[in-house]
Amino acid sequence: MEFSVLDIIRKKRDGKKLNEHEIKYLISEYTKHNIPDYQLAAFLMAVYFQGMDINETTDLMQAMMHTGKMLNLSEIKKPKIDKHSTGGVGDKVSLILAPLMASCGICMPMISGRGLGHTGGTLDKLESIPGFRTNLTLKAFKRQLKRLGVAMIGQTGEIAPADKKIYALRDVTATVDSIPLIAASIMSKKLAENLDGLVLDVKFGSGAFMTDYKKAKKLARTMIQIGKRFGVQRDSRCKKNEAPCPLGQGILLSISPSPLPSPSREREYYISSHAASNGGFQVKVIAILTDMNNPLGNYIGNSLEIIETIEALKGSGPKDLMEVTFELGKAMLKLAKIKGGKNLLEKKIANREALNKFKEIIHYQGGDVRIIDDYSRLPVAKNRIKIKAQQTGYIHHIDTFDIGMLLVQLGGGRLKKEDKIDPSCGFKVNQKIGDYVKKGECLIEIICDNRSKARAVAKQMHAVFTIKRKSCRSTKLIRETIH
Amino acid sequence: MEFSVLDIIRKKRDGKKLNEHEIKYLISEYTKHNIPDYQLAAFLMAVYFQGMDINETTDLMQAMMHTGKMLNLSEIKKPKIDKHSTGGVGDKVSLILAPLMASCGICMPMISGRGLGHTGGTLDKLESIPGFRTNLTLKAFKRQLKRLGVAMIGQTGEIAPADKKIYALRDVTATVDSIPLIAASIMSKKLAENLDGLVLDVKFGSGAFMTDYKKAKKLARTMIQIGKRFGVQRDSRCKKNEAPCPLGQGILLSISPSPLPSPSREREYYISSHAASNGGFQVKVIAILTDMNNPLGNYIGNSLEIIETIEALKGSGPKDLMEVTFELGKAMLKLAKIKGGKNLLEKKIANREALNKFKEIIHYQGGDVRIIDDYSRLPVAKNRIKIKAQQTGYIHHIDTFDIGMLLVQLGGGRLKKEDKIDPSCGFKVNQKIGDYVKKGECLIEIICDNRSKARAVAKQMHAVFTIKRKSCRSTKLIRETIH
Repeated sequence: MEFSVLDIIRKKRDGKKLNEHEIKYLISEYTKHNIPDYQLAAFLMAVYFQGMDINETTDLMQAMMHTGKMLNLSEIKKPKIDKHSTGGVGDKVSLILAPLMASCGICMPMISGRGLGHTGGTLDKLESIPGFRTNLTLKAFKRQLKRLGVAMIGQTGEIAPADKKIYALRDVTATVDSIPLIAASIMSKKLAENLDGLVLDVKFGSGAFMTDYKKAKKLARTMIQIGKRFGVQRDSRCKKNEAPCPLGQGILLSISPSPLPSPSREREYYISSHAASNGGFQVKVIAILTDMNNPLGNYIGNSLEIIETIEALKGSGPKDLMEVTFELGKAMLKLAKIKGGKNLLEKKIANREALNKFKEIIHYQGGDVRIIDDYSRLPVAKNRIKIKAQQTGYIHHIDTFDIGMLLVQLGGGRLKKEDKIDPSCGFKVNQKIGDYVKKGECLIEIICDNRSKARAVAKQMHAVFTIKRKSCRSTKLIRETIH
Repeated sequence: MEFSVLDIIRKKRDGKKLNEHEIKYLISEYTKHNIPDYQLAAFLMAVYFQGMDINETTDLMQAMMHTGKMLNLSEIKKPKIDKHSTGGVGDKVSLILAPLMASCGICMPMISGRGLGHTGGTLDKLESIPGFRTNLTLKAFKRQLKRLGVAMIGQTGEIAPADKKIYALRDVTATVDSIPLIAASIMSKKLAENLDGLVLDVKFGSGAFMTDYKKAKKLARTMIQIGKRFGVQRDSRCKKNEAPCPLGQGILLSISPSPLPSPSREREYYISSHAASNGGFQVKVIAILTDMNNPLGNYIGNSLEIIETIEALKGSGPKDLMEVTFELGKAMLKLAKIKGGKNLLEKKIANREALNKFKEIIHYQGGDVRIIDDYSRLPVAKNRIKIKAQQTGYIHHIDTFDIGMLLVQLGGGRLKKEDKIDPSCGFKVNQKIGDYVKKGECLIEIICDNRSKARAVAKQMHAVFTIKRKSCRSTKLIRETIH
């Protein structure tokens, strides 16, 4: 069907609802380079101001997803559950969960991102392991999933290519910060993974993308609703091995089974009839809202976080990191209908099954497994600068976003996709919000062999911590679980 | 000065005020192709939603103006007054005013546009006169202004090139309909003309760009305020013969004479000090809000409007057309401090001085002056279709916008800049709002030699007129004059 792009922009600009055909046309033609960047930029800014309702957001997600391939993991009989975090500072939960959940019998097809801005990326951390490869083909990815129940790769151009193109445009047009656009972007990639369930770690606070709790919750709700409206892999048209699902052959909404008076009723009807024909299947999504006012765990920086991951798998993870890990892990077990909860997770750590699974992942993906017992094989900087408290008191605030940006300044993160990173540098966080510190006590250590960069960062680090005489409560890490 | 385009977009998106440097940077670099279309598109959509205050709008206007040359008409001692209309259907007032006001001793440097969408263009109408050239060089334009006091040319790439580039982008990104963008666009071209005064015909109603009266008034006020904040030609940096005024050497606001605490006070101070040093000069702007619910005059179409113009100059213009013409003419006389008012204008028509001036314009610009007395030398279609009232009653509504679009369908207007037009076709309007018509009486005539097009348009013409039994008042043409 042919639409006028100008009419679509105008409609959204004027706060009207777009239908699935308009959204599909816009996304498909943009991805095929038939719609210029300037028209999509104007559209995205109109969405920024006018928003999208859940029907539009789901249609957008599906349109983006269907510009690429869908994974078909039907050969794997295990429950397929993935986890996504909206990104934080020191967040290495994915690295721990991947082997841990696989050791519990879950298949976890992890397609992760790289660090950008203040947040680190799972791929960058993994690549600090000598030899570790994240650029597997989808075929190799599936083979490993079958054997190990887990594989960890990077974004591929085959999955939702529209997302990559649209994100790049949002990034340079100040249209990143829009809940429907964020939700559609995340879900278009995750729901292409042929999942049975998805656990979202939606972060809020000074170190999160969405600092505001209410906005983070709205984002979480949006993604849950998308999951409810969607029934990924049970569509016969997508059963073939990674066969492309061309636009116009979408799973939902593209064909209405019977003429019904109202478009919204038609939609509801189709979803339920579709769900019914597939045994009531939907992708179940659980979202956990977690506090990112503190860095998570004690280490920030790529190889440093690998070490902390291994320590966690050995049973010596810091309390806050393990709390988030177990909470997400429990939700994944629940979605997979595997009993045992936290006890099971603790058992898999205690009996080293999770650690051994991580070793297997490293081995399968070309990495040096000796790092598990010999951290000196990882690139870790030796030079350390301790940042000491300038007064006695309680830590009231940590600007966790700034810590993330200071890691970029140190060389351990990136501002642009093309930037190279230094995996050896980072921070060791000694104090968190609510802690009592004495004057002269170490707040944080800067770990970086580039001494001039380390010194420059050290100068800015004091401003990150707010210390007051008055006592202050520590933050509640797990705020809410919604589904 | 170097700015981040992303920061500028984000600032406007978040409803903050931009300063003159940011606006100047954005416009200048965009015009030099250093900022991509997609970033400006996002910015324009942000302006659509967040607006601009009068300082920002004036800065935008100046930034656009200074991407091109400024006319220098200081050799011409006559008062230099121009007129601008926001565009309507059947609006040939400029064509009458140009010779009329020149015959009163005003210098009128008319740079006009072409028809687009439902509105006709002065240039297209003039070009229906055999031989008439509108593409004079600025040098020839000035020479003619000196001799005749009037010349009529088209937009040149030398004046405010930013406007052309930005308008083209707005046209395809649904960002045309924004008061600050419209005001800056109009004024950036008009204030480059080295004017002493400007009269604006701001139209509202079914045939206007801004159908809403309040919005039209807001646009009028914005343009008046821009005129007040601006003191065009008295700046020494622009005294040289059409020397380009590069960005960063703007007239106002680019240099602050003394450091003052608040930016807004600094701005006010500079304007007043600048005004003082130039004898308190500002470009005085009078705006007249006129009703466009009816077509103006009796003829619509290029050559047909030339004939109506000549009839008006011969003293036989229709009442509504002459009412608007005289109202605008009086305002121009007032700005020029020429006494006489409407009496003077009527005298110049009665004694044929205005008609002779029109003859001179045609002669100077290469046209066939014999058309003045022999309309058969103009391309006028012969085939006519009368549209007759289907019921007896009063005309309550005319969809004047649709009449304009039906002219496009006939071939007499254009949808895209590249479209060629047929100057011979058009309409003769026999009835206006409030008129009593009997069933079978002619409402409007379609004049077009392409019979299939004429028939297709005839089918749609009935819907344009709403006739009801109940009596209905005619519209008040001149709604308000503001300055």
